[in-house]
Amino acid sequence: MQDQSVGGWLDDLASKSSTPGGGAAAAMNAAVGAALISMVCNLTIGRPKYAEFEAALVASLSKAENLRGKALLLAADDAAAFGRVIAAYQLPKASDEEKQARTMAIQEALVKAADVPLRTAELAAEVIGLARTILPGANVNVVSDVAVAASSARAALDAAVVNVEVNLAGLKDEAHRTAVQRRLEAASASAAAEADTIVAEVREKIAK
Amino acid sequence: MQDQSVGGWLDDLASKSSTPGGGAAAAMNAAVGAALISMVCNLTIGRPKYAEFEAALVASLSKAENLRGKALLLAADDAAAFGRVIAAYQLPKASDEEKQARTMAIQEALVKAADVPLRTAELAAEVIGLARTILPGANVNVVSDVAVAASSARAALDAAVVNVEVNLAGLKDEAHRTAVQRRLEAASASAAAEADTIVAEVREKIAK
Repeated sequence: MQDQSVGGWLDDLASKSSTPGGGAAAAMNAAVGAALISMVCNLTIGRPKYAEFEAALVASLSKAENLRGKALLLAADDAAAFGRVIAAYQLPKASDEEKQARTMAIQEALVKAADVPLRTAELAAEVIGLARTILPGANVNVVSDVAVAASSARAALDAAVVNVEVNLAGLKDEAHRTAVQRRLEAASASAAAEADTIVAEVREKIAK
Repeated sequence: MQDQSVGGWLDDLASKSSTPGGGAAAAMNAAVGAALISMVCNLTIGRPKYAEFEAALVASLSKAENLRGKALLLAADDAAAFGRVIAAYQLPKASDEEKQARTMAIQEALVKAADVPLRTAELAAEVIGLARTILPGANVNVVSDVAVAASSARAALDAAVVNVEVNLAGLKDEAHRTAVQRRLEAASASAAAEADTIVAEVREKIAK
């Protein structure tokens, strides 16, 4: 994805091919959010007017760069995980032994397939946290981009939640399902509302 | 943007350079949403199980393809419009005549700069409308992608609203400002809530 052209990637996303799909789209939304956090930091750091916030912005820039790199890897992980689910469903199911092996392979593949969007949701929540951190000290000329970052990360979060739930729906291991749901709730509980609050605060700043 | 690598475009987005910025990010989110609408249509059209919805999906696919192309053009328009604003601010302001010409150029540039995100908001609302249209007849295997499309378009809409407001803030022409605000409200009033409803409906379908 990283080396593919933007137009080509979007063509693939739009095509009949199931990867890239919603998982990669969520990762892309998260990467866009992280990139905008970096931009705002890059356009603020070193300016005397914002010296008071320098340390927080330098730390946030480093975190945002890291999250952007991870988001791109998640897009690749998603395609791989999806491939494993498809491969598991295509296993032979003639004998009882084969049926059992196939069921186990499907369940294992679904566990991994749910893990990727779960990590995407957690990453998106971190991007929203960075938007909150940088908002007070962001260069006023690009404060609108803090809102764009938050809303893009919110889209990643919303999408990731749906993508986790799709994979959990086929999972028989109740204990694992509950554990994933708990982590998902912990990541997403307040983050979507926080993103909306950030957008509202930016709009207030602009209107002043 | 279309021919640039995804990684390179994200690097540019993250950089000190002010374009691509939040306007291009919003357009990208809208393009991702439109691409996923296309994917769901492509994976549904022609399947006997969904024959009842065939006509609606064929029409939606054509609209989604069109919107994706337009979204990519909006990203380019945004950079051009931003360039015009910067150029206007850099005009000489030594004499009263120069000052007047500069002010007029700035105001003209801001009108154009507000128009790009306004069209992005309208486009994002159309993508959300397509998500609503295809939801009842979408292939159940990719119904989660309808939610991802809606949330990505919602991010584009939220971002575009902020981007319009940033440009309107510097605009002196009250009548034009009001006209743009009305168009923006018409586009965004129900669309964000509609996107959230679509995500909730998809989650219900998955949980069944």
